[in-house]
Amino acid sequence: MADARHDVIGIGNAIVDIIGRCDESYLTEIGAAKGSMRLVEAGDVQKIYQTMGPAVEISGGSGANTIAGVASFGGRAAYIGTIADDEFGRIFSHDIRSLGVTYESQPIANGAPTSRSLILVTPDGERTMNTFLGISTDLDETHLNLDLIRESAILYLEGYLFDRPQAQKAFRLALDTAKKAGRKVSLTLSDGFCVDRHRGEFLELIRSGIDILFANESEIKSLYQTESFDLAAKQASSDIPLAVLTRSAKGSIILADNKSVEISADPIEQVVDTTGAGDLYAAGFLFGYARGLSLETSGQLASLAAAEIIGHLGARPEVPLAELARQRRLIP
Amino acid sequence: MADARHDVIGIGNAIVDIIGRCDESYLTEIGAAKGSMRLVEAGDVQKIYQTMGPAVEISGGSGANTIAGVASFGGRAAYIGTIADDEFGRIFSHDIRSLGVTYESQPIANGAPTSRSLILVTPDGERTMNTFLGISTDLDETHLNLDLIRESAILYLEGYLFDRPQAQKAFRLALDTAKKAGRKVSLTLSDGFCVDRHRGEFLELIRSGIDILFANESEIKSLYQTESFDLAAKQASSDIPLAVLTRSAKGSIILADNKSVEISADPIEQVVDTTGAGDLYAAGFLFGYARGLSLETSGQLASLAAAEIIGHLGARPEVPLAELARQRRLIP
Repeated sequence: MADARHDVIGIGNAIVDIIGRCDESYLTEIGAAKGSMRLVEAGDVQKIYQTMGPAVEISGGSGANTIAGVASFGGRAAYIGTIADDEFGRIFSHDIRSLGVTYESQPIANGAPTSRSLILVTPDGERTMNTFLGISTDLDETHLNLDLIRESAILYLEGYLFDRPQAQKAFRLALDTAKKAGRKVSLTLSDGFCVDRHRGEFLELIRSGIDILFANESEIKSLYQTESFDLAAKQASSDIPLAVLTRSAKGSIILADNKSVEISADPIEQVVDTTGAGDLYAAGFLFGYARGLSLETSGQLASLAAAEIIGHLGARPEVPLAELARQRRLIP
Repeated sequence: MADARHDVIGIGNAIVDIIGRCDESYLTEIGAAKGSMRLVEAGDVQKIYQTMGPAVEISGGSGANTIAGVASFGGRAAYIGTIADDEFGRIFSHDIRSLGVTYESQPIANGAPTSRSLILVTPDGERTMNTFLGISTDLDETHLNLDLIRESAILYLEGYLFDRPQAQKAFRLALDTAKKAGRKVSLTLSDGFCVDRHRGEFLELIRSGIDILFANESEIKSLYQTESFDLAAKQASSDIPLAVLTRSAKGSIILADNKSVEISADPIEQVVDTTGAGDLYAAGFLFGYARGLSLETSGQLASLAAAEIIGHLGARPEVPLAELARQRRLIP
């Protein structure tokens, strides 16, 4: 993949996170299921924001976090996601560009505001997301820079975008474009509820050419409608050339042709905030894979990135991941 | 002071901080003196923002940080500071209100934007501030809620606001109002350069009735135009009933009538970001003092709050300070 201008290009919901701490009782009060992501309307955002505690604003968005992670490892990365011409849009584009990521999406005027997610972190470090999808879900085929996709070794698609038909259409165009250029295509299932809503479409997309699938335990079980992780994993390995399945503290398992690699989770001193753990796991794996490292090393880079993000508030790395990886002698 | 509705009311620049990490060389590049606060124009903010790394947005403002700290200790607090009707204004007012602080300032439409400070944190944890003073410096006498001032045990004035004549006028009105209601008035000198610019006015204000003065080493030396800390401290104790002088890692000294109390700095595992250390020191002291605790205990609360803030990015407490103080048995 030496001829690729970028290691990874991601397409996802461009979001700014508004992160605050809360007690378990507050989640009950607002009717949010702990650990989940739910979509909320503008009015609900207002209501929750007015009653939640002090917050910090940090760029987020699942796919964007992954791309930020790839860049933090020293990878060449690009991103496509729609923002509005507002303060949060400026924050989002500054933060991703300042990492050296190629981000050319122009702010869209006179539409919905930039998407935001109210993230509530309970004392155990678990995050519960209340996402207001503003302009980010307006993404359609016209927002794709097809040359950028052709020039990237791996295309990375964020499952959260699957809620709108025009975004699904854009995904198919992106996938076809990448495949025709001889590139690899990866997908993250993003969320169990999201898989529930669009199981058929996800399976169709996967079987039409996804090379690498990222999923956690609940997502892969939901995809194959089974309570057995082993059964789901078996199904995944027959459907996809490379299935990367994460299991939180139990580590992860990478299923390739006739090969299965188990990666243990990195020890974590204190779980401060799990937001972005899966996103950063994907970042480490994609960086390693794009650079031709072994599945084992790619998995270790993934675990390292997930552990860094869990140790502080927010889903963007606080220190250069390349430095951490060098300290651990995973990269030269 | 049992009849006071609030323990402390603060008046200051309402600011949202934009905090990012940088190398020492970047400070040289943009011509910023490490550790200082400098005022920059809107155009400079743009230039610095475009070249600085990824950032997080967290409510700030020196006096507002202090008031947030008082509330975090469980104190009843109020704040006066002007914001615009924009995203940063909404962030600022949400964050301070969500702590239970009485904040009634209405957003000002059609003026300058809400003030912001680009804060660059070097690897040693030192912060360098590039502040764009938007609407916050428009504060004048009409923005004061005099009843709120009369009902607060201690008035706290932020020296940074001294750059505009109408704000100085507002300070004098606030001071007179508080004194006539039998309240205590405190002032922080905020910044050595700020003292340089307004030495005469500061001294006049101090001698016209300030009861408690907060200053760090460079500020108090600048105020009395001496290179000797001991000399400056001596001058301060003859000018002000209660002078609270901080000396970073060397701890602090509290000078009252015929009494001097030395407080050692709390041990800090890792200096992550010094932003707000002085602000939170003042918070701990003011809370203890307002609640009638001894100078020693008030100083220990001050050190504890400063240590908490230095251990993470941003100048607002990440955990309730009341809890930390109870663990240390400083409050019941």
